Amino acid sequence: MSNPAATPASVAPASLDLPQPYLLFLGDVVHPAFAKTAFGLRDWARERCVGEYALPEAKVGLGLPALTPRQARDAGARALVIGVANVGGVIPDTWLPPLLQALADGLDLIGGMHTRLAEVPMLRDAAARHGRRLIDVREPPAALPTASGRKRSGKRLLTVGTDCALGKKYTALSLARAMREAGIDADFRASGQTGVLIAGRGLPLDAVVADFAAGAAEWLSPDADSAHWDVIEGQGSLSHPAYAGVSLALLHGSQPDAIVVCHEPGRRELLGYPGHAVPSIEETIDLNLRLGRLTNPAIRCAGISFNTSHLSADQAQALMRDESQRLGLPVADPIRGGEALRALVRACVETPT
Amino acid sequence: MSNPAATPASVAPASLDLPQPYLLFLGDVVHPAFAKTAFGLRDWARERCVGEYALPEAKVGLGLPALTPRQARDAGARALVIGVANVGGVIPDTWLPPLLQALADGLDLIGGMHTRLAEVPMLRDAAARHGRRLIDVREPPAALPTASGRKRSGKRLLTVGTDCALGKKYTALSLARAMREAGIDADFRASGQTGVLIAGRGLPLDAVVADFAAGAAEWLSPDADSAHWDVIEGQGSLSHPAYAGVSLALLHGSQPDAIVVCHEPGRRELLGYPGHAVPSIEETIDLNLRLGRLTNPAIRCAGISFNTSHLSADQAQALMRDESQRLGLPVADPIRGGEALRALVRACVETPT
Repeated sequence: MSNPAATPASVAPASLDLPQPYLLFLGDVVHPAFAKTAFGLRDWARERCVGEYALPEAKVGLGLPALTPRQARDAGARALVIGVANVGGVIPDTWLPPLLQALADGLDLIGGMHTRLAEVPMLRDAAARHGRRLIDVREPPAALPTASGRKRSGKRLLTVGTDCALGKKYTALSLARAMREAGIDADFRASGQTGVLIAGRGLPLDAVVADFAAGAAEWLSPDADSAHWDVIEGQGSLSHPAYAGVSLALLHGSQPDAIVVCHEPGRRELLGYPGHAVPSIEETIDLNLRLGRLTNPAIRCAGISFNTSHLSADQAQALMRDESQRLGLPVADPIRGGEALRALVRACVETPT
Repeated sequence: MSNPAATPASVAPASLDLPQPYLLFLGDVVHPAFAKTAFGLRDWARERCVGEYALPEAKVGLGLPALTPRQARDAGARALVIGVANVGGVIPDTWLPPLLQALADGLDLIGGMHTRLAEVPMLRDAAARHGRRLIDVREPPAALPTASGRKRSGKRLLTVGTDCALGKKYTALSLARAMREAGIDADFRASGQTGVLIAGRGLPLDAVVADFAAGAAEWLSPDADSAHWDVIEGQGSLSHPAYAGVSLALLHGSQPDAIVVCHEPGRRELLGYPGHAVPSIEETIDLNLRLGRLTNPAIRCAGISFNTSHLSADQAQALMRDESQRLGLPVADPIRGGEALRALVRACVETPT
């Protein structure tokens, strides 16, 4: 990093387009919390999921057609996605027979666990034998460039947060969907592994080498038509002691025209970091705008996304109305949708005066 | 990153202590600019360099004893360090005979080029045959933790900058040396590959995966005696479109009690980024203090380090006096040393009132 001029010439990385549609594998999962990836795919990429496939021990279903790998292949599936996590991130032996069957029946395997699929010798050998691919969405593309700082064409929105794990991905997905419903040309851009599975492309920014993180963010939302919106999934928080660097690289590389601040009302301490206070919404807006101006001087905050899953509908509505008044900005819970979400979308795409 | 609780349990990484002392290899270098690493080692780790070793074509010397690998080994050397760079970062074929000789004569090889030593089959085979190590200082230690945000004991100083490549490493080295000369218990902590070679330990922060960058910075300056100072080599700049994320992770993980802002008077645009203005010193102080308070609320700016290598002694002195008055902070050029440097050291270690 000490001498940018000495950086070897960058090569444009290959796109990470995933084989689709998917068969969603649920393993032997007994609690829905461990099937978040599968539920996310069902909710946000339903048209690209031909069915689900589970071991007899599984206690969780998605409501999709139950298909064997062979049936899924016949229905057009091109890959089996491991849609469940387990403690430690390993692939248990009980999963091997169904995964091997999927390879034999013509499906690629897609995983995002701590253990890479290619680290399992039986899977590696079977994939080679059947001419199938093992794709780990934790692996970023090779040959990412360092950031150039060059302003790109098209419009960009970035979801930012007061903490991790409070709805930045779902907010971006919801806003992209609501934009398209409003007739706006918009794409969701995934910066994390579940998002990559949903979008079928993107990259896991947290796995990129630090020097290339802003460059990866630039690569994620390339030049586009002047009226096109990229809605970019945020990561971490500028006020997080472990992940602020990732958040800043994503902010700088995204060059957002608009940010939406994601927040969970009532969360007082950073998740997993007792004693570390969640910053205020105002502080989060101010910090993101101040730092974001470096690569887009026209950056503005379009509004706020609340995760109100722990509140009743009435409580949520009252709180969002009060906070909207206090902050002078639209506030919506994208999962609840409705007029509040449409107002937030309008605030995102309006041309600032 | 979306769920910190799911992060696998961290294992403390092995220390990256390098085998020392060194024999410095100059290859066939004809211009001093390509031997910066060797000069840095000579200037800052002279007592750990037994000699230099070059091909007959070389036109650059360090003024150290010229030794063969065998002679260096007899003089106590444990490793040959590749102290030169060449365009493209490859290891030319003409270097292979001397490098193979060094392995045969009992030296480990240490490199930091773009091409990893272990990627060269002849070196890999010879190292295995002779039981020697090939060490790449571009490789960070394995199993780095994510940052905890926990405040560590001991005192820390971080050099920060208005841009890349303007003296953050030399400032940290100079301050650590001047502190020790003033009787203060101080260590230089290296965050880049040349610094790692000089210190004989540390890590190349720019090569760490983004999610672990702040954790790597925490690991770099562990708990210490309350009166001990770690003087940490800074990286990049918070106002750099490509590297600000690395700088922020280092700032958060370092938890500095004091920062020293490094600046090159007269530099108007970021190196290699035409059109991107160098931020003011005041903006750089303010941004670092604001963001640094997250992990150390007591952070303060102790003073400024100027790189005045392009000015005369008189010009430099006048400029530093004027800027010191304007900013109300000590300003020194560590390479020029003198009373200004001692005043900067006093400002670094003074207990704020």
